[in-house]
Amino acid sequence: MTGCPTFLSVGERAEFGRTLSAADIAAFAELSGDHDPVHVDAAFASRTAFGRIIAHGALVMGLLSTTASMMSRRSVERGSPGTPVSAGYDRIRFTRPVFAGDALTARYVIEEVDDARGRTRSRVEVVNGAGETCLVGTHILAWVRAPA
Amino acid sequence: MTGCPTFLSVGERAEFGRTLSAADIAAFAELSGDHDPVHVDAAFASRTAFGRIIAHGALVMGLLSTTASMMSRRSVERGSPGTPVSAGYDRIRFTRPVFAGDALTARYVIEEVDDARGRTRSRVEVVNGAGETCLVGTHILAWVRAPA
Repeated sequence: MTGCPTFLSVGERAEFGRTLSAADIAAFAELSGDHDPVHVDAAFASRTAFGRIIAHGALVMGLLSTTASMMSRRSVERGSPGTPVSAGYDRIRFTRPVFAGDALTARYVIEEVDDARGRTRSRVEVVNGAGETCLVGTHILAWVRAPA
Repeated sequence: MTGCPTFLSVGERAEFGRTLSAADIAAFAELSGDHDPVHVDAAFASRTAFGRIIAHGALVMGLLSTTASMMSRRSVERGSPGTPVSAGYDRIRFTRPVFAGDALTARYVIEEVDDARGRTRSRVEVVNGAGETCLVGTHILAWVRAPA
């Protein structure tokens, strides 16, 4: 890769809100194959340290996928010649459980822009309706160019 | 947290195989809110560097959720008094795109066990049917005890 103008700036933000229902969590159990009872069995979950069904971490990360795509779209609309794709995540921490019915907000803030490499690093977080942080970490977008 | 016996050992492995269909990717777009055309619009995707629809990274990470839950279950079945939960991921990298129809295998190998903290660190990876690595990283499980 020979770099790519991203047309994004440090400090730019994207935000996306969504409430994950018990049905959403059950649907993700089907998609992922993870039918762990803490995610799908209310009676079992009531006997755990959490007391009720919790969402899969990867499902909560899905909301960040949406904010990353909002940034990608801006980059393309502003004229970037590359395709921005998710390159990875650093130091993701699930700091509080997410319960069915929690009104979540995913936030994405660009912290570094490297046009020479075609790359951005961004702080990501997901907070619940009480304003408590459930997930924090860093996301990396990389711009890929179509083969010549 | 005052630590917790995990009853897991360095070198233990879990593996889970699944083929993600275009319908699975579309279903995850609904769940996550990420309807980026690279994930749901075949005509658009054909004009990107990838040439066809790719799966969301968070959906691919869902397969690792299943392997982590396989480990959690072993821990509980062996008598751990805690509830193992996903604490986070370090240095996740999406090294190749995942396409609809790819026969994926998720692999989970325990690399560190810390009973004093009630924590394990594991190498995670997802490979496609050609044996190519699509995702690598580290997953952290933490054992939580019910309040006394």
